[in-house]
Amino acid sequence: MSTPHPYTVEPWGITEQTLDPDHLPQSESVFALSNGHIGLRANLDEGEPHGLPGTYLNGVFELRPLPYAEAGYGYPESGQSVINVTNGKIIRLLVDDEPFDLRYGQTQDHERSIDFREGVLHRRALWTSPAGRTVRVTSRRLVSLTQRSIAAIEYEIEPIDGPARIVLQSELVTNEELPLPNADPRAAAVLEAPLRAEEHTHNGGKAILVHRTEHSGLRVAAGMDHEIDGPEGMYMETESAPDLARFSVTTVLDRGAKLRIVKYIAYGWSSTRSLPALRDQVAAALTAARYTGWAGLVAEQRGYLKEFWDNSDIEVEGDVELQQAVRFAMFHVLQAGARAEERAIPAKGLTGPGYDGHCFWDTEVFVLPVLTYGLPHAVAQALRWRHSTLPLARERAAQLGLRGALFPWRTIRGEECSGYWPAGTAAFHIGADIAVAVARYVRATGDRDFERDFGLEILVETARMWRSLGHHDAAGLFRINGVTGPDEYSALADNNVYTNLMAQSNLLAAADAVGRHPHEARALEVNTEEAASWRDAASAMYIPYDEDLGVHPQADGFTKHRIWDFENTPPDHYPLMLHYPYFDIYRKQVVKQADLVLAMQVRGDAFTDEQKRRNFDYYEALTVRDSSLSACTQAVMAAEVGHLELALDYTAEAALMDLHDLAKNTKDGLHMASLAGTCVALVAGFGGLRDHGERMSFKPRLPVGLTALRFSLSVRGARLRVETTHERTTYTLREGAEIPFLHHGEEHTLVPGKPLTLDIPELTRDTPPGQPAGRVPVRRQGVPDAHPTGPSPG
Amino acid sequence: MSTPHPYTVEPWGITEQTLDPDHLPQSESVFALSNGHIGLRANLDEGEPHGLPGTYLNGVFELRPLPYAEAGYGYPESGQSVINVTNGKIIRLLVDDEPFDLRYGQTQDHERSIDFREGVLHRRALWTSPAGRTVRVTSRRLVSLTQRSIAAIEYEIEPIDGPARIVLQSELVTNEELPLPNADPRAAAVLEAPLRAEEHTHNGGKAILVHRTEHSGLRVAAGMDHEIDGPEGMYMETESAPDLARFSVTTVLDRGAKLRIVKYIAYGWSSTRSLPALRDQVAAALTAARYTGWAGLVAEQRGYLKEFWDNSDIEVEGDVELQQAVRFAMFHVLQAGARAEERAIPAKGLTGPGYDGHCFWDTEVFVLPVLTYGLPHAVAQALRWRHSTLPLARERAAQLGLRGALFPWRTIRGEECSGYWPAGTAAFHIGADIAVAVARYVRATGDRDFERDFGLEILVETARMWRSLGHHDAAGLFRINGVTGPDEYSALADNNVYTNLMAQSNLLAAADAVGRHPHEARALEVNTEEAASWRDAASAMYIPYDEDLGVHPQADGFTKHRIWDFENTPPDHYPLMLHYPYFDIYRKQVVKQADLVLAMQVRGDAFTDEQKRRNFDYYEALTVRDSSLSACTQAVMAAEVGHLELALDYTAEAALMDLHDLAKNTKDGLHMASLAGTCVALVAGFGGLRDHGERMSFKPRLPVGLTALRFSLSVRGARLRVETTHERTTYTLREGAEIPFLHHGEEHTLVPGKPLTLDIPELTRDTPPGQPAGRVPVRRQGVPDAHPTGPSPG
Repeated sequence: MSTPHPYTVEPWGITEQTLDPDHLPQSESVFALSNGHIGLRANLDEGEPHGLPGTYLNGVFELRPLPYAEAGYGYPESGQSVINVTNGKIIRLLVDDEPFDLRYGQTQDHERSIDFREGVLHRRALWTSPAGRTVRVTSRRLVSLTQRSIAAIEYEIEPIDGPARIVLQSELVTNEELPLPNADPRAAAVLEAPLRAEEHTHNGGKAILVHRTEHSGLRVAAGMDHEIDGPEGMYMETESAPDLARFSVTTVLDRGAKLRIVKYIAYGWSSTRSLPALRDQVAAALTAARYTGWAGLVAEQRGYLKEFWDNSDIEVEGDVELQQAVRFAMFHVLQAGARAEERAIPAKGLTGPGYDGHCFWDTEVFVLPVLTYGLPHAVAQALRWRHSTLPLARERAAQLGLRGALFPWRTIRGEECSGYWPAGTAAFHIGADIAVAVARYVRATGDRDFERDFGLEILVETARMWRSLGHHDAAGLFRINGVTGPDEYSALADNNVYTNLMAQSNLLAAADAVGRHPHEARALEVNTEEAASWRDAASAMYIPYDEDLGVHPQADGFTKHRIWDFENTPPDHYPLMLHYPYFDIYRKQVVKQADLVLAMQVRGDAFTDEQKRRNFDYYEALTVRDSSLSACTQAVMAAEVGHLELALDYTAEAALMDLHDLAKNTKDGLHMASLAGTCVALVAGFGGLRDHGERMSFKPRLPVGLTALRFSLSVRGARLRVETTHERTTYTLREGAEIPFLHHGEEHTLVPGKPLTLDIPELTRDTPPGQPAGRVPVRRQGVPDAHPTGPSPG
Repeated sequence: MSTPHPYTVEPWGITEQTLDPDHLPQSESVFALSNGHIGLRANLDEGEPHGLPGTYLNGVFELRPLPYAEAGYGYPESGQSVINVTNGKIIRLLVDDEPFDLRYGQTQDHERSIDFREGVLHRRALWTSPAGRTVRVTSRRLVSLTQRSIAAIEYEIEPIDGPARIVLQSELVTNEELPLPNADPRAAAVLEAPLRAEEHTHNGGKAILVHRTEHSGLRVAAGMDHEIDGPEGMYMETESAPDLARFSVTTVLDRGAKLRIVKYIAYGWSSTRSLPALRDQVAAALTAARYTGWAGLVAEQRGYLKEFWDNSDIEVEGDVELQQAVRFAMFHVLQAGARAEERAIPAKGLTGPGYDGHCFWDTEVFVLPVLTYGLPHAVAQALRWRHSTLPLARERAAQLGLRGALFPWRTIRGEECSGYWPAGTAAFHIGADIAVAVARYVRATGDRDFERDFGLEILVETARMWRSLGHHDAAGLFRINGVTGPDEYSALADNNVYTNLMAQSNLLAAADAVGRHPHEARALEVNTEEAASWRDAASAMYIPYDEDLGVHPQADGFTKHRIWDFENTPPDHYPLMLHYPYFDIYRKQVVKQADLVLAMQVRGDAFTDEQKRRNFDYYEALTVRDSSLSACTQAVMAAEVGHLELALDYTAEAALMDLHDLAKNTKDGLHMASLAGTCVALVAGFGGLRDHGERMSFKPRLPVGLTALRFSLSVRGARLRVETTHERTTYTLREGAEIPFLHHGEEHTLVPGKPLTLDIPELTRDTPPGQPAGRVPVRRQGVPDAHPTGPSPG
């Protein structure tokens, strides 16, 4: 919070009150619109200046070779990179023949905003051209949550100080020139001109461009249509070319008169459908959108969001900035997942090309838990996408000598796209992350149909993978060696606790599901011996423990490693991976992101309270948070072990990751997992929600700085509302039959029409642990002495 | 020995009696000539057919980018690849206008041979052209061991059945077209047309081409001159062009008449010298060679080799094939190292482009020990090369956050060229391998000047590297974590026993050398505290031991890993690295090449006899010998623990690696380390030579199948001869003052003129251990029940 941030602080929206061109790369991500199928970066209507032009379709990518200085068996030969498809956002404006370009002339006023209850990007500009003519430009843009193929723009121009000759050019532009890539491996490979033209047509105010990617063979159609409202005698023209379609309107506007254009944009893509089929599909979507009309689309958007917020809103009292941030987070998680529909939810959603547009474990471990209790159908869709990739995952497992299915560490379509196996393929936990998400979804929704038709096969094939990956040692313990856990600052260790505990859950969930669906299990060739072997492996799972230190090593030998020299690591040497070699990072005690601490969150049942306290303190002193997937988890566990203000600091860090551009790469897209993690930090952290077992469990407890927290959950047909202050919590059943639950360990049953108000027991406060030198989180509230930089552990 | 091999078995040479074009790639390596500065593959004089044209100059390489699918800090950005320089070997022949090409016409007779006492490649061909004219072609080729820049060819043509019009074209050809590379990562990157022409000149029968590499900036000059002996009235012509120089002779030869040409070839290269300087240097070398003449060059060659064999010959009785193989090995080791002179000795010598022409640890651990006791000046030269790369090694250490110097895992000039760090940079043992080679050389020769001027700095800088790489744990033990040992089927383990023991030797050797050269040590800023810290670390060095199994794990946790499923690994799935992913290989108990067993050879003082026996047996059952650097070490330790016939099997495997093309890649060049290892297997294995301590120690013991073994050693000015049979050993001091030594653990002193004949104590024979299924070595002698495929350990 020491750097200035350009956004207003408000509870239900976000507003940028001036335009700083240097800030465009970041704000294009922050104001990005998406429905999970189409993603539009918040590029200015006129196209320039820009940070990075971006129009994405979920699942549209190009292949590129993955090169290796030294080849190896099983290395993926080709990667998948999200591509910038045909840009339909562009509406260029000429005022008396001078282009409306904020780099020239004078911008008197410029504001962009989104109200999260409306889901429309508003823009307002008052601009004086170099020749002295002042005009007001207002635009509204949406990506429809109700009409999956549709985006739309309402654009209005009004001369303020005299008549102006106006030319509006509304375009579709393919193969835009993109800025050069930087050297950060986390940024995307820029693919030049990835789309080959197949057809271009226009008719009236409508135009469609059809292209195809060369190597991945995906056909993409983009169309636009227009409604115009302006003075008599406007001249209109439509043209199309292979990579450009243009609809032009020319008129002279008197002072105070307005020209208004509504642009409907539609996208379709397919790997199999014919050109005419795809072209016509886009035309049909345009027709439907015109029928709905701009006002109709806005009304539908509001209606969709009203229901979403009604089910999913998290209210925070006492910290407006955090309230704003958590709604910003929910809004973007919704945008990423709402209409993904059997496609991946990428790490950046569809807000930027970061990480090549790949989907990682982020989806199942961070994003889906948030959607599970508010928008469960989106979870089912995301997991059905995973299910659809099972043939590829089985092939990959066979290639690597494993049984069952091995899901990719990073992918768009399902093939493994990791070019560095020690931090890719070796992160086997991805399989359990997916399986546990399946089990969580089924437990929360009771959706047995999904379990039978999709979940079971995922559970069975991942259990088979674990069973063949691990082995029993001479003492009968089941060990999983040579894997990389969540913390990417270690690699290829034996018996990573997170991995082993998640594999244990996976094996048991598979055996349980087989018991519930014996017929379908037989079709998958599971017999009782096999299911028993999963239970055996789960119950014999080896979990290392360091008796000397009284903590769990995150993997065998970890606590014997040298502790990173934090004192002598300059602040500008973070993230460490850009300044130190992997060999040195891997062999020392330094944690990029919560690993053992994440294990304690997702498998809290496997640790005693005392172990949680000791482990948390130990790893706190080693964790540098060079990943955006860490603060939210540290928040949850800090809250559980009683360091409530530290938990708030981490919650705020997760929440402000993109609004404050904390990792300095928001320009590449938003950090979906960190945004989702913000919600988890509040609900699982301060709300204390856990759902390991049969009953939901809550341990609400607020930090200094928050006065109340309220959230709702949909569970097995019931809707539960939790409202807590520092002193007490009220549980209300908004829908559904009675539900048993735990409040701070005590059993209660909630029945319809009878809210329960329960006291929160006193907390015995320990001294909070220190962080590595220079890695203390930003203090959210002034709590004296809460964050000493403690001595290193060990 | 189940496949036919094309070479005669003879004690002092090697002869190929027919020409099989399919066998050319391999025989071009086997008959390659080199002096360590120039290397000529045994391409036929007429250039075609060929397996792979190859003319190499030690240190001449081109840079090429090293690509990464995912970048990382400290990854080398460019690699170095040996290039095929201007080919001076070519002498084309036309017989009545038909090219002499063995693919056409009829080859009546074709023989190639080398006598290791002469060092000249002989060739004899009797060929009938498609038109029916029969000619005899004889040629002799040498790369001079006495004139470093010189190669020479004597070529003679004689019509047998009638007169023939003959055209001889003797050429220099630059940027030859090379066959396409294969996908095996061990093969070289082929660089197309790496040389840019700078100058071409000719005068009389002499011509010189000067080129420069584009990226590495090395200037290469190649020259030729000729002597002709033939009938009157020959027509001669010389031409030159940027990439071609040609000297032509035309005449008509009567039946029985001969045309003889002697071609002198000279090479020079430099990164700094001017074009005229380099061109004139080559011209001067040609002049000197012509002055010496063909007969003179042959005589010098004989003289050089006589002295070499007199000092270094290893005589084996009872197995002619092994006798031949060990002399073949010695001959090629000599060729690789004789005149390398402050350049690297590559893993393939200069016999092929395998491994990109890189030098690895092979040099110091396998090749230099052989040269240390016979050709010590070559050892000093090789280590002076390492010394010359210290500035680069210091830079690399600093880049990776280490003190001192970090030598590259693979290189030509000194920069790290490994593109896969887990099996490259992480193999830190390279530093100790070099340091221990320094200490061994100084101990064997007493060359204190070398130690002061070169050795000390290497020892100090490597000791500093170890001190900063390792750390003391809470119990005060010094640990070295996250390294890769010799066995490349494990990676990034903690406390690799070989590495830790070698680092211990390195640290102590450095501290000792500092004590001997206090003045020079001060110049290197070593103070007594620093030297003491090396001794401390050495004495606190942690060596893991598995108490349960009673063996040393090769690194922490190794013996807890799952044992590779050898039973279900098909024979054609070796080498494993081409058929299984690294992740799976790394996490299981499977050993590519001797690692712990090599530790027991080089640091025998650190193990009890019982430990050696148990460890040997344990690792024998896990070692698949997918590296050529294994059999020789297994031979040595098999002999030490008493499995003498198994030791013989391994000795033969090492010895026949290239003659029998056991790894099927002899075409890419000879396996210098395996060749050198053959000598080590005999001298250290059956001779039992160890020089860990102050005194040399011998434990001679012969296997069934050998009747006698004789070898000589030069040690500290003395020349010692060891002659052993099954029953007794005779030690003779051929030169020098009295020398104390151990014979089977008993102390003796050898004095001039008084040979000592000592009995060999009885051996209690244990059952030899088994190897992994399908990896039993080829039985050298029929010893019943000597090689059961034993149960897996553990």
